Amino acid sequence: MKELAAYIEQNRVFLDSRLVELVRIPSVSSQTAHDADSLRAADWLVNLLTKAGFDAQAYPTDHHPIVVASSPKIDGAPTLLIYGHYDVQPVEDDGSWKFPPFDAFIQDDVLYGRGASDDKGPLMAHIFAAEYWMKYAANRPQLNVKFMLEGDEEGNSDVAARFVREHADLLACDYLALSDSPQFAPGQPAITVGFRGIAYYQIRLFGPANDLHSGMYGGAITNPCNALAKLLGSLVDAHGRITVPEFYDDIVRPSEAEQIQVNNLPFDAEQFYNAVGVTEGSGEEGETILSRIWTRPSFDIHGLSGGYQGEGSKTVLPATASAKFSFRLVTGQNPASIVKNLRSFLASQIPPGIRMELESLSSSPAVSVDTSLPCMKAAARAVEFGFGCSPLFIREGGSVPIISVFSELLTPNIVMLGLSQKTDNAHGPNEHFSMTDFYRGLKAAACLWRELSVSEPFVPTK
Amino acid sequence: MKELAAYIEQNRVFLDSRLVELVRIPSVSSQTAHDADSLRAADWLVNLLTKAGFDAQAYPTDHHPIVVASSPKIDGAPTLLIYGHYDVQPVEDDGSWKFPPFDAFIQDDVLYGRGASDDKGPLMAHIFAAEYWMKYAANRPQLNVKFMLEGDEEGNSDVAARFVREHADLLACDYLALSDSPQFAPGQPAITVGFRGIAYYQIRLFGPANDLHSGMYGGAITNPCNALAKLLGSLVDAHGRITVPEFYDDIVRPSEAEQIQVNNLPFDAEQFYNAVGVTEGSGEEGETILSRIWTRPSFDIHGLSGGYQGEGSKTVLPATASAKFSFRLVTGQNPASIVKNLRSFLASQIPPGIRMELESLSSSPAVSVDTSLPCMKAAARAVEFGFGCSPLFIREGGSVPIISVFSELLTPNIVMLGLSQKTDNAHGPNEHFSMTDFYRGLKAAACLWRELSVSEPFVPTK
Repeated sequence: MKELAAYIEQNRVFLDSRLVELVRIPSVSSQTAHDADSLRAADWLVNLLTKAGFDAQAYPTDHHPIVVASSPKIDGAPTLLIYGHYDVQPVEDDGSWKFPPFDAFIQDDVLYGRGASDDKGPLMAHIFAAEYWMKYAANRPQLNVKFMLEGDEEGNSDVAARFVREHADLLACDYLALSDSPQFAPGQPAITVGFRGIAYYQIRLFGPANDLHSGMYGGAITNPCNALAKLLGSLVDAHGRITVPEFYDDIVRPSEAEQIQVNNLPFDAEQFYNAVGVTEGSGEEGETILSRIWTRPSFDIHGLSGGYQGEGSKTVLPATASAKFSFRLVTGQNPASIVKNLRSFLASQIPPGIRMELESLSSSPAVSVDTSLPCMKAAARAVEFGFGCSPLFIREGGSVPIISVFSELLTPNIVMLGLSQKTDNAHGPNEHFSMTDFYRGLKAAACLWRELSVSEPFVPTK
Repeated sequence: MKELAAYIEQNRVFLDSRLVELVRIPSVSSQTAHDADSLRAADWLVNLLTKAGFDAQAYPTDHHPIVVASSPKIDGAPTLLIYGHYDVQPVEDDGSWKFPPFDAFIQDDVLYGRGASDDKGPLMAHIFAAEYWMKYAANRPQLNVKFMLEGDEEGNSDVAARFVREHADLLACDYLALSDSPQFAPGQPAITVGFRGIAYYQIRLFGPANDLHSGMYGGAITNPCNALAKLLGSLVDAHGRITVPEFYDDIVRPSEAEQIQVNNLPFDAEQFYNAVGVTEGSGEEGETILSRIWTRPSFDIHGLSGGYQGEGSKTVLPATASAKFSFRLVTGQNPASIVKNLRSFLASQIPPGIRMELESLSSSPAVSVDTSLPCMKAAARAVEFGFGCSPLFIREGGSVPIISVFSELLTPNIVMLGLSQKTDNAHGPNEHFSMTDFYRGLKAAACLWRELSVSEPFVPTK
């Protein structure tokens, strides 16, 4: 595959420029003001994949379209489905971005912009690898390749899940690959074999009909902000354990073998803390940092909102308060029973004079992949080719809800090839992505075609 | 004083129009964008008082100017200082105002607009009463009258306090009157003899240097929003008692006589709750509603802010979280020792990986007035004249920090004549003020001149 390196060398400006073009489309899936941008991103991808020789189409959904593309059929060859998402998280408008988040640019080998790392950069590595095999290489591997690129990963994962359920034939595959997980660290590429699940909620508390004067009513009329702080504060105990009844009951601990491997990973706590600007952390008592983020559940408040947030002081007793929060879930935990227990736990604590609305915004169970599958060895060879070193097999604390659907409906042979870095600030301000990693990823993605074309897909007995 | 009624009848349109004019000036003291409006309001008042025959001047301060006006000196006559504030609270921009808050208008005998009730309406009743005596009435009472109208009451009360300390001679008086407290209820005017104090804080918690992906870090990096909810949630216990150490130690309970009088007040709990749109409330266990808001301390969160507050979901672990909150204080409590105990109490609970900034935005002790003072009887007669019924002697849960300074530096003869209603939605959206109350107040304010001119001011022995 020497030709690939030469190809990249010769086409780098053109490859770079199209990557930047996609990152500049502000396809924020959760904000209706950006709906047209999501359409634009989908069309852009259809156009790119069509030019690369795929039969590509943007399928309408309840929300943003899903792009599906298929290479011309090679009879008898196995099929690889590559998944990615073209939507991005909202951006902060509080001055914390050092550059316009949707004016992507490359400087000193780093791509800057919302979505650079999550997930436009990584998915484009796969698309450019496909373009290479389909348009330029003489010796295309005997592999059928499909793409499924969705526009709601950061928001409503139900859209893609429903699509997979309704289009299982269209998406039928022997292998599934995606790059929506990070490397373990710079220079330490990883195959991810587990994600946490998530149960994401919005809570709204309603008190008096209008904002009140806190002097005239404070002490007698229940304050929704007070109630919210108390409620949310009660969800984790002094030992860092979540207090929702039965929350831990069904958790399946990782195997002892996995735990030993995890404990041997080159992990530096000080570095972990330093990277995010703290000197210490906190979490569930008696658990290591990697356990806390990979195989133990967590509770995070994502947004707090209530009352007067402007300059100076205002002595108001607010009419409402709200918060967004989630639990990250681990193997064995069932989102449906968690929301049931959460709702009754919160309801039992609501003080007099407060009405609660609890909305479940999204949820998905945790997912894990068997490391002994043949496709894992194929993927490891692809990583060695692209990155020049073996991958680590790791879990990740984040959630890619669609993966549990893939695993259930399409194939257990799921290759999660990490290209981004945890320090890319995905979901935060100043998101970025290493172009060195991008081109290593492109090479690994291309090599994966070759390795999977000669691998034997594992088919579970029903 | 029959002439006064005729005067009001004949001049009502002109009186109304000037009141509306003042309420239309958006003199929001806590927002720098409105600084010019505060200047404009002060100039407007100087102009009005000058035309009424006062020697009026806007004194510059560290923040917004203070208007001081003095009537031509009558030797041997006692002096009444009338206090008010021309600044107003910020307005909500969340669509909860049914009309533009600074486009005041009168409809069906009600004045609508920010500041209508707090405090522009009530202070204008006093100014129009002064205008009546000084410009139109033939038989002006033998009373020297001064005004002190400040522009920072809703924000930084230090400005007026410092001004009083530095200009005690200019403001020297035998009586002090103000109308910045409500009536007990419609048709039940009141003389207020106690206010709670306040200690108002802003807390900011800082965690990681940037917003993080909650999947990658959730469970191991301390979340400032989680920490804030837990901290604020810990400030009140299950019995509605504030948990700051020594918080209740120095409280002086009201006399048994006052408590009996309070228990006999025509107070309807259901009505109290209904008026603000709730069916029940909460607060310190074992206390009546009136005790909870008049003579017991309270804790209210005024604003909660952190993380993602937009549409949909965002799985962010925020870098910071903040809140505004206050304690209302009662007789005996010392703001200085409370902030000390609060700071160490909060600091002892800060989890690893979080840095706290606690800022004291303002504070003042509670204040109470002796109901047996001669000026209280004079004030009662003025209320009878204006409202046609005797006033109730009540306390209020709000705080007028400057009053403790007046009491300390100027005079103990403080008449707090309530004109507004608790249901006027002062500090909230759709603030309004009854024009019937306005003109009753104008009459009471005018009668107060006559009553005080023949009263004997109480002078405490040093």
